[in-house]
Amino acid sequence: FICEGVSLGEAVREQHGKDESVHRCRPPDVVVFPRCVEEVSALAKVCHKHRLPIIPFGTGTGLEGGVGAVKGGVCFSLRNMEQVLDLHPEDFDVTVEPGVTRKALNAYLRDTGLWFPVDPGADASLCGMAATSASGTNAVRYGTMRENVMNLEVVLADGSIVHTAGKGRRPRKTSAGYNLTNLFVGSEGTLGIITKTTLRLYGIPEAMVSAVCSFPSVQAAVDSTVQTLQAGVPIARIEFLDDVMIDACNRFSSLSYPVTPTLFLEFHGSEQSLQEQVKTAEDITQSNGGSDFQWARDTETRNRLWKARHDAWYAALALRPGCKAYSTDVCVPLSRLPQIIVETKEDLIENRLTGPIAGHVGDGNFHCLMVVDPNNPEEMHRVHLFTERLARISLVFLEDCRHPSSRSLLQG
Amino acid sequence: FICEGVSLGEAVREQHGKDESVHRCRPPDVVVFPRCVEEVSALAKVCHKHRLPIIPFGTGTGLEGGVGAVKGGVCFSLRNMEQVLDLHPEDFDVTVEPGVTRKALNAYLRDTGLWFPVDPGADASLCGMAATSASGTNAVRYGTMRENVMNLEVVLADGSIVHTAGKGRRPRKTSAGYNLTNLFVGSEGTLGIITKTTLRLYGIPEAMVSAVCSFPSVQAAVDSTVQTLQAGVPIARIEFLDDVMIDACNRFSSLSYPVTPTLFLEFHGSEQSLQEQVKTAEDITQSNGGSDFQWARDTETRNRLWKARHDAWYAALALRPGCKAYSTDVCVPLSRLPQIIVETKEDLIENRLTGPIAGHVGDGNFHCLMVVDPNNPEEMHRVHLFTERLARISLVFLEDCRHPSSRSLLQG
Repeated sequence: FICEGVSLGEAVREQHGKDESVHRCRPPDVVVFPRCVEEVSALAKVCHKHRLPIIPFGTGTGLEGGVGAVKGGVCFSLRNMEQVLDLHPEDFDVTVEPGVTRKALNAYLRDTGLWFPVDPGADASLCGMAATSASGTNAVRYGTMRENVMNLEVVLADGSIVHTAGKGRRPRKTSAGYNLTNLFVGSEGTLGIITKTTLRLYGIPEAMVSAVCSFPSVQAAVDSTVQTLQAGVPIARIEFLDDVMIDACNRFSSLSYPVTPTLFLEFHGSEQSLQEQVKTAEDITQSNGGSDFQWARDTETRNRLWKARHDAWYAALALRPGCKAYSTDVCVPLSRLPQIIVETKEDLIENRLTGPIAGHVGDGNFHCLMVVDPNNPEEMHRVHLFTERLARISLVFLEDCRHPSSRSLLQG
Repeated sequence: FICEGVSLGEAVREQHGKDESVHRCRPPDVVVFPRCVEEVSALAKVCHKHRLPIIPFGTGTGLEGGVGAVKGGVCFSLRNMEQVLDLHPEDFDVTVEPGVTRKALNAYLRDTGLWFPVDPGADASLCGMAATSASGTNAVRYGTMRENVMNLEVVLADGSIVHTAGKGRRPRKTSAGYNLTNLFVGSEGTLGIITKTTLRLYGIPEAMVSAVCSFPSVQAAVDSTVQTLQAGVPIARIEFLDDVMIDACNRFSSLSYPVTPTLFLEFHGSEQSLQEQVKTAEDITQSNGGSDFQWARDTETRNRLWKARHDAWYAALALRPGCKAYSTDVCVPLSRLPQIIVETKEDLIENRLTGPIAGHVGDGNFHCLMVVDPNNPEEMHRVHLFTERLARISLVFLEDCRHPSSRSLLQG
């Protein structure tokens, strides 16, 4: 008797066999609900002995099918481990169990003047975000999970418990030994089950303001992004939505932005620094033919704006009821970004595909949210050909080649 | 015939068997001077076949004895691989070979408006800085090598060549596969020989200003540091020097700062943001009893100030001619820093040891530069007992205990 919560029920197994993506495979054979690291360890030992696959499960909000039980096995649902531990406001760090989501942590921190900025959109488990090396809209300013995880408690496949930076440690920097923390960040559950993560916190900025800016072309929007970063503006968020995406968001979230390539921006800092940042960004966007900024100043308006951005996935799905969404995820050097987005849009149109584009463009990162009818094999085939082309083009752009067009290269 | 440069000469071997530390062991049996990764690989294959230890050698500026040939073997001096490759100013990245030092890179970048900020003091090889996970005075603002290496080319022990983020890639962020880059950063030559590193660059700030501030006590100086960071000032450098250290620097670098606990500060930003940062820092230091800031505004004065800080090692050595220096390296959470420095100073005085303290206090990191007569076994013994105590105290401070004094804990 290791763990109180065990379920063999079909509904529970089904629920733990899928995330929010289109990917489906068999559900796990059993779901367990450990309440502490000792239970996780004891269960892992049993699985290890009987050679049963282990699948850690946080919130199931992933978009890549990572929780699928490809070979069956035991799903470890970690939702009952939901303590916020060891908050050190004076050192800007906190330790959380795997059931704590990013929104739960920020609610917990509300009165401390601190927050945890990494924000992949979904209200994901923070340990799951560590496991998948999550990033999102704030990464351009605050980094991804890689830069913000200070320590991890991990249960290995054989049940042994390791602390990647030493038990109870929370070093701001260290050069003692191998960087095991960052080996586990992004390991997607393949190296162990993360049962605790120690995170770096930030002071809530004195002032924040968001703005929306419409552009005559994709090139103009992305050029503005690149120039804003090159000017050294410490922008907190700079998100690109193409015309199809902003149209979908307008419909889904009852907004009325012009249906053209658009940037959602957010600035953090002191009142004075905010003025300076905004001035520089406005000069740059206007020199690229951008519209006046539409402001979102108070918390409620800002939240509505960013909720709309975070709901892009559902907005895309709503474009074609009954269809499924399938996201691509491409990151190229900043200077290559305008060209690859322009070429990708041309490809989507040529091949009659619905793929609104949303991008964390400050990092050179963008998604095509492919909306596809899973019952239409011909369309599925066109999507697969498109994603393969996109993957190959990305590689060309990632490497150090300076060809005027990568499509001509691929087609030539 | 693999490599033109091979030396068995005693002087060359001696020169490559030591760094700037007190640590000494036997020199390597042979020193080779490969000119390209293919030569490094071919040489590694020979060593692998004959089971000869390999010791990579950059500039020999380390302070931890990492280049010592503990079991003899082949020293790979990489100074002949000194190309700056693939500068992408528009993407803020560059790739360098192991012979390129941080000063050489910054000289190369001079006309681009960009710089590489990580600065361990010595003019170290950038690939060596990656291998040792170097940090230094700018880490509080710009991070350490961990945050600034984007890709590495590494020759493994068997001569195979790997690119930790994919050949030719320079991703600003990635969640594709394990983070091998950060497994090699800080691996100290134990996992392979770094033959190329791709680095993140930064725009040179519009304005920079340095200042020196004297304090009535260690506690006041360190409290000011903690409060400045808690106030969200994006300070570029904040370096602590205790009374013994500033006295040594005064003598060595012909300065005349008051002989009391001191902070060297540097601010980077726009003119406007600089004013704001300085105002906040001045308010904080003065509320802690700090002196008026002594300014270093022009480049030359700033350089003289930071040269004095970087020469702290030699300044410490000059306190006792004929002695050797031996540095400790401790990092604790910020909130624990005042207490551990105060207790460490008491310990040094009680035990009649010369150990000026210099600290990257913004990261919770400080060094005692122990100056010791290697021919006095009784003094050497006292130093060893001290460093052991310091190591044990650091662990207590690092872990999550809130005892009023860790010394009483250890002694109790």
